[in-house]
Amino acid sequence: MAGTTGWSEMAIEPLRWRGDALELLDQRLLPEQSVYLRCTTAAEVAAAIRDMAVRGAPAIGCAAAFGVVLGRGAESAYAVLAQARPTAVNLFWALERMRKARDPEAEARAILDEDIAANRAMGALGAKLIADGARIMTHCNAGALATAGYGTALGVIRAAWDAGKRVSVIVNETRPYLQGARLTAWEMVQENIPATLITDSMAGHLMSCREVDLVIVGADRIAANGDVANKIGTYTLAVLARRHALPFYVAAPVSTFDLSIADGSKIPIEERPADEVTGYRGTRWAPQGIAVRNPAFDVTPAGLVSALICEKGVIAEPSRERIAARLAA
Amino acid sequence: MAGTTGWSEMAIEPLRWRGDALELLDQRLLPEQSVYLRCTTAAEVAAAIRDMAVRGAPAIGCAAAFGVVLGRGAESAYAVLAQARPTAVNLFWALERMRKARDPEAEARAILDEDIAANRAMGALGAKLIADGARIMTHCNAGALATAGYGTALGVIRAAWDAGKRVSVIVNETRPYLQGARLTAWEMVQENIPATLITDSMAGHLMSCREVDLVIVGADRIAANGDVANKIGTYTLAVLARRHALPFYVAAPVSTFDLSIADGSKIPIEERPADEVTGYRGTRWAPQGIAVRNPAFDVTPAGLVSALICEKGVIAEPSRERIAARLAA
Repeated sequence: MAGTTGWSEMAIEPLRWRGDALELLDQRLLPEQSVYLRCTTAAEVAAAIRDMAVRGAPAIGCAAAFGVVLGRGAESAYAVLAQARPTAVNLFWALERMRKARDPEAEARAILDEDIAANRAMGALGAKLIADGARIMTHCNAGALATAGYGTALGVIRAAWDAGKRVSVIVNETRPYLQGARLTAWEMVQENIPATLITDSMAGHLMSCREVDLVIVGADRIAANGDVANKIGTYTLAVLARRHALPFYVAAPVSTFDLSIADGSKIPIEERPADEVTGYRGTRWAPQGIAVRNPAFDVTPAGLVSALICEKGVIAEPSRERIAARLAA
Repeated sequence: MAGTTGWSEMAIEPLRWRGDALELLDQRLLPEQSVYLRCTTAAEVAAAIRDMAVRGAPAIGCAAAFGVVLGRGAESAYAVLAQARPTAVNLFWALERMRKARDPEAEARAILDEDIAANRAMGALGAKLIADGARIMTHCNAGALATAGYGTALGVIRAAWDAGKRVSVIVNETRPYLQGARLTAWEMVQENIPATLITDSMAGHLMSCREVDLVIVGADRIAANGDVANKIGTYTLAVLARRHALPFYVAAPVSTFDLSIADGSKIPIEERPADEVTGYRGTRWAPQGIAVRNPAFDVTPAGLVSALICEKGVIAEPSRERIAARLAA
């Protein structure tokens, strides 16, 4: 029923500013429960980011901005927030903006409003790249939940759907933290966009069976040359997409670009706790005594990216020069 | 401690023949519990195969052979066993052998003994391909548990370890059924072979960080041209290995080759229940209303396989001609 229900009528609100508190839709409890976590201090916001009550690069940036407001701009507030998570550059971008702001609360509100506007703009730009009937694979959650609202990669899918294109979505579950199975699947069900859940290991098989038309993901940090840090597993999808000659798109706002970093090798990759890999919420399935690695992100080289989609435009075959030119526009 | 504990001292016994019953180490309960499931009829063996109390292509073949013995060779026994699972050709190979046997019990015992011998032979051949210090990635469980004992891909790793090579193993968890996290990790811990568990989505990242030297997996069916059906996710690893110029080996006994099938496109791919994808053992993490795909296997084209390792030798750059020649040797 493309277009019959606009997104705004059923909007998912990941962050709510209450003047004296930031309420975060606790993403650890989704899809079973929709519960808001109330944060009244910068330290509580930092903990919510670290423990993944709020996640997704743009959403982390917005939350951190309100964290500064709750911390009354104290140096300790900046310090605790800056240490919450290392990879998503939006966090540092937001803190930097807050440092320069004369009216912190107005600035935090502006960061939130601008993020939604950026997502809407990316949606409109990206939807033009999506053919009617396209079968779109996505990874992790780059949806309303990962942003101030609407989403980056899922924003493009939403915009295509709302424009009447009969798209369908293949949702990679995104181990270990299952953001695809829990969050993206939930967003798609909420809005009746046709979607199918698979394990990450099935992506290559579906491509080889010609059941995928394109891949679109979000980003946590994009280096000056177009290398993309995003959820672990993204690089594998880009390699598979290239083998199958499928477009591989990355949708991310300008706040996710880090022009101070020459290439992806300089992006810090967070290593998260082992218990995310050995089981799920207290159920352990791996034997005791096994070593574990848990890098939360990987880097996709720019050469595997068909186009970056940001609110300033679509950057096809991204390069240092094309990115610099588009962001300066 | 390479070589200080021989494998035979601590052997894992996936199947035990008791004369009037087949006892199967129930792999659904590992690694938490080591419980044997007692089967006294062909239908019980078929159910154990279907429900994955026993899994792994060679182990399924052995179990089916004893299923025929328990069913006293009745046509109905063959029928129920042949319908248990579709992809692993060892099942059909074993049933065919049993049909021709004069002494069914002796034939079933021979199938089991020959499988262990084949694994030992593959181990010796394959270990020569493994350098001292190699960091070996494997997928699913192609270990003792997947065979009559010792293992195919893990047999090669065991043989390299027992030869004093200081290998380490990167174990892909292998969603959805977690054979890597539950079974391969357990086998490695049992034998003190250094091993690290990762999610399937991390394989590409570790390769790009130069933390992997080679990939070795088992197989469920190998077509005449060398295309390999194996656990879902194998194809993706082969694509990644090729991008990173890493050897990609497949270890499987002659009983896994299906020369009646020209190429991988003719291999039936089993689609398993949705609840394996939406959660784990009764814990559901995906929202209600989401569609699910669950293909249990994929096909890796022969062109991505560096070598097939079988008990008759190593078939480098497999082709129809090379496979036919080696198997006829």
